[in-house]
Amino acid sequence: MEEIAAGPLLSNIDTPYDLRKLEKGQLPQVCNELRQFIIDCVSVHGGHFGASLGVVELTVALHYVLNTPDDQLVWDVGHQAYGHKILTGRRKVFHTNRKYGGLSGFPKRSESEYDTFGVGHSSTSISAALGMAIASKYKGEHHRRHIAVIGDGAMTAGLPFEALNHAGVSNANVLIVLNDNNMSIDPNVGALKEYLTDITTSHTWNRFRDDVWNLLGKVPGKDLQKLASKVEAGLKGVVSKSSNLFEALGLRYFGPIDGHNVVKLAETLKDLNDIPGPKLLHIKTVKGKGYDLAEKDQTLWHAPGTFDKVTGKINKKIATVPEPPKYQDVFGHTILELAEKNPQIMGITPAMPSGCSLKIMMDAMPHRALDVGIAEQHAVTLSAGLATQGLKVFCNIYSSFMQRAYDMVIHDVAIQKLPVVFCLDRAGLVGDDGPTHHGAYDIAYMRCIPDMIVSAPMNEAELRNLMYTSQLPEIKYPFVIRYPRGQGVMPQWRTPMERIEVGTGRMICDGSEVAILTIGHPGNFAVSACRILATDDIYPAHYDMRFVKPLDEAMLHDVARRFSRIVTVEDGTVVGGFGSAVLEFMNANGYSPEIKMLGIPDRIVEHGKPEELHRECGYDAAAIADAVREMAGMKQMVM
Amino acid sequence: MEEIAAGPLLSNIDTPYDLRKLEKGQLPQVCNELRQFIIDCVSVHGGHFGASLGVVELTVALHYVLNTPDDQLVWDVGHQAYGHKILTGRRKVFHTNRKYGGLSGFPKRSESEYDTFGVGHSSTSISAALGMAIASKYKGEHHRRHIAVIGDGAMTAGLPFEALNHAGVSNANVLIVLNDNNMSIDPNVGALKEYLTDITTSHTWNRFRDDVWNLLGKVPGKDLQKLASKVEAGLKGVVSKSSNLFEALGLRYFGPIDGHNVVKLAETLKDLNDIPGPKLLHIKTVKGKGYDLAEKDQTLWHAPGTFDKVTGKINKKIATVPEPPKYQDVFGHTILELAEKNPQIMGITPAMPSGCSLKIMMDAMPHRALDVGIAEQHAVTLSAGLATQGLKVFCNIYSSFMQRAYDMVIHDVAIQKLPVVFCLDRAGLVGDDGPTHHGAYDIAYMRCIPDMIVSAPMNEAELRNLMYTSQLPEIKYPFVIRYPRGQGVMPQWRTPMERIEVGTGRMICDGSEVAILTIGHPGNFAVSACRILATDDIYPAHYDMRFVKPLDEAMLHDVARRFSRIVTVEDGTVVGGFGSAVLEFMNANGYSPEIKMLGIPDRIVEHGKPEELHRECGYDAAAIADAVREMAGMKQMVM
Repeated sequence: MEEIAAGPLLSNIDTPYDLRKLEKGQLPQVCNELRQFIIDCVSVHGGHFGASLGVVELTVALHYVLNTPDDQLVWDVGHQAYGHKILTGRRKVFHTNRKYGGLSGFPKRSESEYDTFGVGHSSTSISAALGMAIASKYKGEHHRRHIAVIGDGAMTAGLPFEALNHAGVSNANVLIVLNDNNMSIDPNVGALKEYLTDITTSHTWNRFRDDVWNLLGKVPGKDLQKLASKVEAGLKGVVSKSSNLFEALGLRYFGPIDGHNVVKLAETLKDLNDIPGPKLLHIKTVKGKGYDLAEKDQTLWHAPGTFDKVTGKINKKIATVPEPPKYQDVFGHTILELAEKNPQIMGITPAMPSGCSLKIMMDAMPHRALDVGIAEQHAVTLSAGLATQGLKVFCNIYSSFMQRAYDMVIHDVAIQKLPVVFCLDRAGLVGDDGPTHHGAYDIAYMRCIPDMIVSAPMNEAELRNLMYTSQLPEIKYPFVIRYPRGQGVMPQWRTPMERIEVGTGRMICDGSEVAILTIGHPGNFAVSACRILATDDIYPAHYDMRFVKPLDEAMLHDVARRFSRIVTVEDGTVVGGFGSAVLEFMNANGYSPEIKMLGIPDRIVEHGKPEELHRECGYDAAAIADAVREMAGMKQMVM
Repeated sequence: MEEIAAGPLLSNIDTPYDLRKLEKGQLPQVCNELRQFIIDCVSVHGGHFGASLGVVELTVALHYVLNTPDDQLVWDVGHQAYGHKILTGRRKVFHTNRKYGGLSGFPKRSESEYDTFGVGHSSTSISAALGMAIASKYKGEHHRRHIAVIGDGAMTAGLPFEALNHAGVSNANVLIVLNDNNMSIDPNVGALKEYLTDITTSHTWNRFRDDVWNLLGKVPGKDLQKLASKVEAGLKGVVSKSSNLFEALGLRYFGPIDGHNVVKLAETLKDLNDIPGPKLLHIKTVKGKGYDLAEKDQTLWHAPGTFDKVTGKINKKIATVPEPPKYQDVFGHTILELAEKNPQIMGITPAMPSGCSLKIMMDAMPHRALDVGIAEQHAVTLSAGLATQGLKVFCNIYSSFMQRAYDMVIHDVAIQKLPVVFCLDRAGLVGDDGPTHHGAYDIAYMRCIPDMIVSAPMNEAELRNLMYTSQLPEIKYPFVIRYPRGQGVMPQWRTPMERIEVGTGRMICDGSEVAILTIGHPGNFAVSACRILATDDIYPAHYDMRFVKPLDEAMLHDVARRFSRIVTVEDGTVVGGFGSAVLEFMNANGYSPEIKMLGIPDRIVEHGKPEELHRECGYDAAAIADAVREMAGMKQMVM
């Protein structure tokens, strides 16, 4: 892997101090070179694309005007922070971005002092920057400035509103830059987006006020002057505080301004430096700015993979044999198939229609499949509300994002025993996105909830069967189906759907000495492990448990009676996870087999390809084989 | 326990259908009788007080105008739903409210068809009602109306904002009644509260517009007419949509109106019936309305316990010997004591300054202890932001409310290894508030997070020592301290503070045959159990483990070598909890003792006195003694 070449100005910027030595008039060229660098790099190495292109000018302007890292800059989500990384000492290693052992795809405190706050999930930046600002104030560091850059998509979540409610009465020196591009990964949705469009496209309040004054100034007469002062007083008293949503919340609002005019941006940011207290600058940008195709199809070019930067052709693996589908697409096609037969079914996604493939149903049945924006809490409580009316809701939320709605799962769904179906996409180690996005904890945090059904399919057919089962009227409890990001194992995946008895597993193969119990997709790793082991004449039994809760107790009794050595395998934390559930069963029933628990270890796992991470964490096929060998008393070193 | 007598009108209202038979002019008397009934009942039986008094008129007006239960009414939080319960068929059993086996203190679907959505935690009502409204629309039930009643305190949370963002573009027939009384349990805080006060006390926009028109109408001349129309157009285009925070979000806003004029309320609600789409009615009420003392000290009278309704004297247990303090007060005094010595310490509470006693520090050090409103997510991410600047934050959140901030704990604190201290108040079974408030899951959902230190004190001295330890500079990881609601065990609690080695327990007493391992306050139940057992000549060992994570491995090795029978006791779910952690240790280290795990069972536990619930769940002293006896092979029936 080689370092990417940079333009003449950029190649001399090793830190923002170098940037600040330039003339203001040189900034447009810096922007061009930075944009080109990002295109050069992402086209070859992949990664997030459109978001960083959209904030090239903002990034340059911020580091030019601010005294980073003493001034503290928090990037919300962090998809858009590539330019920031490149300008803050990481240009020469930027080609390692998102690679195993390389730079993180997101800002990360341990990576650079310029990365003030680790991100990945959206909507945290205002709270974090406010915390920093309050700390600075308390410590008497009055010169430090604190800036949160947040997109209009991230603003639909509840957390920024909680933070604004606090910021508005805090008089902390915090600047919120609202990067308004009308997008999340998919187009942004909701009333706030409509509002932002409205204040951008209509006369602004300031302009209107100017108009009125011009008009009044032109009409002669004493009465009019009286009127003018009356109107002024009235406007000030009534409208000024409530004329803008953000001003209503106690922030000073500025904008909207063009986010692609770097000189104007720098000047505005400089002016804002002198204004104390909480304030918001609304800038309009275009996601994918400067790369035509990315501007036109912003969802596709959010993270397009590698591509030919000249033609714009996205590189795709050319399959010589039929490939298995992504679990996501199996979900998307299957929910539509089910919804066509069952009018009770509705689908909910918080801002991930493309990512989770609910879009397939949204296109076909727009009234029965809803994108509610980045709003996981609302997605779950709304699902609960729908379920009280007898509807069967498939609420699809990424495993790590479901952490946002944990209370709603317990309080609004589980305690009320509402049969909502939670499809937890991206369960397990997700790969390049790293620790913020790994779906590591869901088995542990879901199985401790009473009455919760917690399942995971080993392949496409099981995903379809679990989805089919979960929507049957006999299911009276919430039902979790967790599955990983990416491809399954069955090219011929459109199998006829069958009911699975809740709480039953299946034997994949019988054997002796050791039993392997797996949950979900890693069952396939165990199948491979068994193949490896067969060459050593070791034949463990393998059970695909399918349900973490309720466990297949009959099967486990049988396993416990026949085997004294068990390996459990899961794509989740071993602390309190599936293996722990098996342990609890064995203990409660007076069995004491030797159990080796494989899964995500009790530490933060960084980014890398899933295969790399499965190996590192010790639950790929080779590691499972190794564990079985060791247990079977035939440990051999695998080189 | 006896039924409470009702006034002449109220005693004939068994359902809202009876209420609807009355003349509008009789509604004020119904309100008087309902208010008196609530005072009569709560003064004798305890419960929440001020909130229900504040919405007597609203409750009567809603059930008078709406066609409940076909129309669907969602009460946010539910503290205020006593009047609702009394009017909807539960008057005669209302004296069982919050008692073991009696009515729930909150709306509950299984209790009545009038309770459309179970509540307890705040801020869920808009999402739930919107779900119902969308379901009705989809099912073609266009006559049904859906109403959420939410307080201004509950509006500071993120979830209602997520719901508004969706509601504003949904054109669902949902009415939000904003019950604005300036209070949570403590006075409400934040920018939204300021805004609501502002639009209530200043000229309203509507009135201002009327003023301007009156003025313009009085000035003659053509130019003025031109001006008038220009102003009108400008105002419409610019201000109308953005003149109000709620209108900015796409809702029609009405109000503010007096929430204690029942006739006016009924008329307004009737008018609103005819207006389609999402809308918000802002009413002003006084918490505690109609009971003087409750109006004057609204926090004290939120839930005052029993009292003399004539004198207003609140009944207090008269202690003949020195009583142990509440854990809450130990927290409040101890954080102040620590903060006086350590300038790095700050305290954060999301809207529970009185409940968790952070108020003690807020009064003494207003700049170092902050109430951020009902905003658990923000509380945690703000704490993370403060911690990046080297501050040591004690973020105090009730165990069940921390479920709201689970992602922030993982994503903003744990992944970044920020040493925030989480004090989880009301951990374990909380008593009267029931299933929504039980802190049942925190051990399970916290211990699966890497690097998290999870501890629980057995008494006041340990709470102080854990707090002392957690703020030492050597602590580099997030640190959970969980403790229950209510009294500890040490009347002389102001012990000198000592450092506890992280991950160490202590032996309470040595013994033979069986080892009891406890975590936190239930250690005291085990002490009692040992006393009971001594009368049978059974002498188990007892260890207070203090840390769930990291476990005291040296101690557990010792226990495992000496005992083959272990009882674990915890005030948390046994699924994935402390006992499960002990099991994992034993399995990983090749021990296979018989382990009996006592704690909260894997089902929803209802409300009742903590002692009643501990007995029911089988981990009070008698149950522990029983478990030890059984293991010791000397099972005797306890009558």
